[in-house]
Amino acid sequence: VSYPEISLAGVFPPIVTPFTADGELDYDHLQTNFAIWNQKPLAGYVVQGSNGEAVHLSEAERVGLIQAARELTPPDRLLIAGSGAESTRATIDLTRRMAAAGADVAIVVTPGYYAKQMDAATLENHYLKVAEAAPIPIMLYSVPANTGVDMEPAAVIRLAGHPNIIGLKDSGGNVTKIGFMVQETPADFQILAGSAGFLLGALSVGAVGGVVALANIAATETARLVEAVQRGDFVAARRAQGPLIEVNTAVTARFGVPGLKAAMDMLGYYGGPPREPLLPLPEKDQVTLRKILGKAGLLAESMS
Amino acid sequence: VSYPEISLAGVFPPIVTPFTADGELDYDHLQTNFAIWNQKPLAGYVVQGSNGEAVHLSEAERVGLIQAARELTPPDRLLIAGSGAESTRATIDLTRRMAAAGADVAIVVTPGYYAKQMDAATLENHYLKVAEAAPIPIMLYSVPANTGVDMEPAAVIRLAGHPNIIGLKDSGGNVTKIGFMVQETPADFQILAGSAGFLLGALSVGAVGGVVALANIAATETARLVEAVQRGDFVAARRAQGPLIEVNTAVTARFGVPGLKAAMDMLGYYGGPPREPLLPLPEKDQVTLRKILGKAGLLAESMS
Amino acid sequence: VSYPEISLAGVFPPIVTPFTADGELDYDHLQTNFAIWNQKPLAGYVVQGSNGEAVHLSEAERVGLIQAARELTPPDRLLIAGSGAESTRATIDLTRRMAAAGADVAIVVTPGYYAKQMDAATLENHYLKVAEAAPIPIMLYSVPANTGVDMEPAAVIRLAGHPNIIGLKDSGGNVTKIGFMVQETPADFQILAGSAGFLLGALSVGAVGGVVALANIAATETARLVEAVQRGDFVAARRAQGPLIEVNTAVTARFGVPGLKAAMDMLGYYGGPPREPLLPLPEKDQVTLRKILGKAGLLAESMS
Amino acid sequence: VSYPEISLAGVFPPIVTPFTADGELDYDHLQTNFAIWNQKPLAGYVVQGSNGEAVHLSEAERVGLIQAARELTPPDRLLIAGSGAESTRATIDLTRRMAAAGADVAIVVTPGYYAKQMDAATLENHYLKVAEAAPIPIMLYSVPANTGVDMEPAAVIRLAGHPNIIGLKDSGGNVTKIGFMVQETPADFQILAGSAGFLLGALSVGAVGGVVALANIAATETARLVEAVQRGDFVAARRAQGPLIEVNTAVTARFGVPGLKAAMDMLGYYGGPPREPLLPLPEKDQVTLRKILGKAGLLAESMS
Repeated sequence: VSYPEISLAGVFPPIVTPFTADGELDYDHLQTNFAIWNQKPLAGYVVQGSNGEAVHLSEAERVGLIQAARELTPPDRLLIAGSGAESTRATIDLTRRMAAAGADVAIVVTPGYYAKQMDAATLENHYLKVAEAAPIPIMLYSVPANTGVDMEPAAVIRLAGHPNIIGLKDSGGNVTKIGFMVQETPADFQILAGSAGFLLGALSVGAVGGVVALANIAATETARLVEAVQRGDFVAARRAQGPLIEVNTAVTARFGVPGLKAAMDMLGYYGGPPREPLLPLPEKDQVTLRKILGKAGLLAESMS
Repeated sequence: VSYPEISLAGVFPPIVTPFTADGELDYDHLQTNFAIWNQKPLAGYVVQGSNGEAVHLSEAERVGLIQAARELTPPDRLLIAGSGAESTRATIDLTRRMAAAGADVAIVVTPGYYAKQMDAATLENHYLKVAEAAPIPIMLYSVPANTGVDMEPAAVIRLAGHPNIIGLKDSGGNVTKIGFMVQETPADFQILAGSAGFLLGALSVGAVGGVVALANIAATETARLVEAVQRGDFVAARRAQGPLIEVNTAVTARFGVPGLKAAMDMLGYYGGPPREPLLPLPEKDQVTLRKILGKAGLLAESMS
Repeated sequence: VSYPEISLAGVFPPIVTPFTADGELDYDHLQTNFAIWNQKPLAGYVVQGSNGEAVHLSEAERVGLIQAARELTPPDRLLIAGSGAESTRATIDLTRRMAAAGADVAIVVTPGYYAKQMDAATLENHYLKVAEAAPIPIMLYSVPANTGVDMEPAAVIRLAGHPNIIGLKDSGGNVTKIGFMVQETPADFQILAGSAGFLLGALSVGAVGGVVALANIAATETARLVEAVQRGDFVAARRAQGPLIEVNTAVTARFGVPGLKAAMDMLGYYGGPPREPLLPLPEKDQVTLRKILGKAGLLAESMS
Repeated sequence: VSYPEISLAGVFPPIVTPFTADGELDYDHLQTNFAIWNQKPLAGYVVQGSNGEAVHLSEAERVGLIQAARELTPPDRLLIAGSGAESTRATIDLTRRMAAAGADVAIVVTPGYYAKQMDAATLENHYLKVAEAAPIPIMLYSVPANTGVDMEPAAVIRLAGHPNIIGLKDSGGNVTKIGFMVQETPADFQILAGSAGFLLGALSVGAVGGVVALANIAATETARLVEAVQRGDFVAARRAQGPLIEVNTAVTARFGVPGLKAAMDMLGYYGGPPREPLLPLPEKDQVTLRKILGKAGLLAESMS
């Protein structure tokens, strides 16, 4: 099987999962958010990335959410489903069920509970088994801040040759490593930046786009950056990148999912509460966050 | 509710979960192993600690395994069930179901996927919610090598006052921290070492026992150490501790669950394969492991 | 005092310090190396960066080496002297003596022995004292792999306003952080990449050049990359960056100063032995290194 | 050469180096402090450990300080001189000069600037060269918080066989590692805890004493702990250890040398200012520190 036609270029938000006040999946607000995102210059959606609280969902919820997202995703946009689990068998099972639910591509986070054992050979075996069993193409996903695993380039390079493994989301932010992987993998293996803070850095060395939390709230701004690079205008790209760094840090490393959801609430989307143990962003951090959103020019936009 | 009667003193193996060659739960070999362990001087069993591959089991398997272990555990030994999950709601649900399946105590690992957000306030809220909802007493469980979260003493100290939180398994191995928590918590809050490498160090500052992987294969030797401390014989305790360190490192940090399972196969227990992505211990590491088991005097024992 | 005229744009090798077989400073081979470097498109030299083994030199040797380098540096190239020491007083003393010996600029590495105390306020006080006392402009230098200190952006941003602090060498490689500092500092504050692995990534977000170990042996190749960016040709820049990453890692993170010196010996420069405790690169690593130099096209060049 | 007669058992403060208000070495207050320490149950002194700000002293000051300490140290107490430097040659030179100045033993910290290169082979070569050249016995010194180097047990075990290497100060605090090294080294190789927080933990697995910052201000209390272990009274030892942990953390990891010096000033010793870049402890941290000293019962003692 080969999937030469699937392009991962552009910007994909790893969408937040909305919950009601009493902690249930909130499909109404999922629809609200999609209604806005579908007006923005996005290439598609990642459902159940790290910002989607996949680890807080039951298996049934995970599959149901993909089904719902399928109905909300226009046919010209990609639906990328996060199907990773700690065991290979559970990952295969989820990937198949999510494919059946309509996912175009599965993005598979590295297992992390046994981080010390996740050497190149172990990860290769895991991803090869998943890729062989999956009815849809697979993206690798390395996110050391969440899993403790920073996938070795050697493993990525070997896996990149498999016809059903089409790309990598790298959230580690090490552009030396990203540049090296671009250099050593086939031209049709597509690498995406995993955070908007190093989006330009990654694009400059050959990434084709980004799966970035910030695109939940600043799709236009992040897409503008990618488009500038695509047309070779690095001056414009740098002008786009600069103001996005601080706000990106605020809704990722600094305040996490609670921060991203709070920002959504401030900007006309539905954020709502995360599921516990995550707690809503404390009041005083909300004040800081609002200032940062203002400085980045995002508050104004939401009012326009 | 108060549970003053439950003593956590002594040695508890966090038992490995046996799988058949094709990856299914292997209840027959679970029975085989219990038949041996029940002859050893153990205080009880931890089912679904980090060595039990809980993250590789489905929810149904997790509950079923507790039920099976209940039948195999003598009434004078404690059955401690690992009921931790990433979300508070799933943890509560599992704790209740495991209590219904016969667990005496639930041991709840810290969530880890959002490690950066797991500050003292977030963990306190999580554990208080679980402790309030649980029909059985709760142990805290901090294991930074697996979760990326090294539970702050401040959180432990505050939680130790809750009547339904009776102890802590600390696998971080920092005896400064363990000593501090012993000093700052009530006398009936019981701290257990999470690995046999620092068992004597932890006991010397006030831990009451250990939940140690090594007890899967060296129950007598680890129990001897604890008993020596209990009768105040630190010379004997040191003599017991010394030879256990290298072999303990081999079946934990160095070779992980694959190493522990391989050692079990070498010593008359059933280890069998881990579930993928974990792979069986490579041949050449098996040679190293066997030498280390021999040096620690464990091969001889298994033949006697 | 203000130094608006000093441009740090371009490539600077942090030159290795040559020693004779019996460990003495080798001024003859220093001359040999400069004779080659002076033919290359370099903007100047950093003497006693991390690759210069400053920590292995006596104070007298440190000053003497600057004097020697001054004589070997053409007047149209900058001589940047590494004058950092653990104490503020020693740093001031060395900076003055190196200025008297002919240095144009002093590059001051963060102290590191008390890394935990090196918070923003402490570093600000240190650098302000040095900048006030120095008769020449100062560059900040953050190199966490050597010092354990990753200088906080807040400190850099505040220090960037001082008229005698003209730039920063950042060897941490985090382009999110570099981009943020570019965004938040005045236009005349100049940031340089501290390693060739992330040179393009750093340039893309606004760095003006690099102080990169690789320029000791691949000055032309690294300069080509910077020039491509300067004329806005990011396609050429990416083509230049790709092949440099693996070889750069080899002579920095992987094999360290012993690797860089071995590479120099292979490429027609004088590398010679490092001072102990550093040991010459082992034979088998030399074989690996030679292959990597070949793959990067550098062996061929040296023969031409 | 063999030094079977030197016992490192007991407690040694790594003494702080007093400076005058204008930053000069303050020999008068050195004498003041020794006058108190000499009344306490200490086995000797470590001059220029990590708390002695050796890295802030010139070479001449370093040797002069040993000479002064020699005159202040009673003949029945050991004078252990910190002679470590980044290069092997400088370490040898300092060791010889400190021996000539009257040091009984030299304690040699691992080099740290090239931490990644400090593998077992490199450290073995370094220490063997120093031990061969030194006219006095050598202690190894591993302090990862300051150097980034956590000396591998393999290196320690091999070096322990050298007749001129008599012991190790381990400040890493990993009692698994300490216990392993005790187990694998000859009986006359003496290991000392490098911090009072894990003193009992280390003693329980076979350390013979401690070089602990806390002994600068709580010599009696730390000595009491060691003596309790020496007579086999682990109940008393635990009672001694408990209250020392929080105050020890305050004057080491939490507030560093500035905290230790501030505590000395509060307790009747001369602390005075550290050399910059270290800054005196801020006012508000002084308030916290005073509370912690009070809770540990040390304020009362100083008034008696």
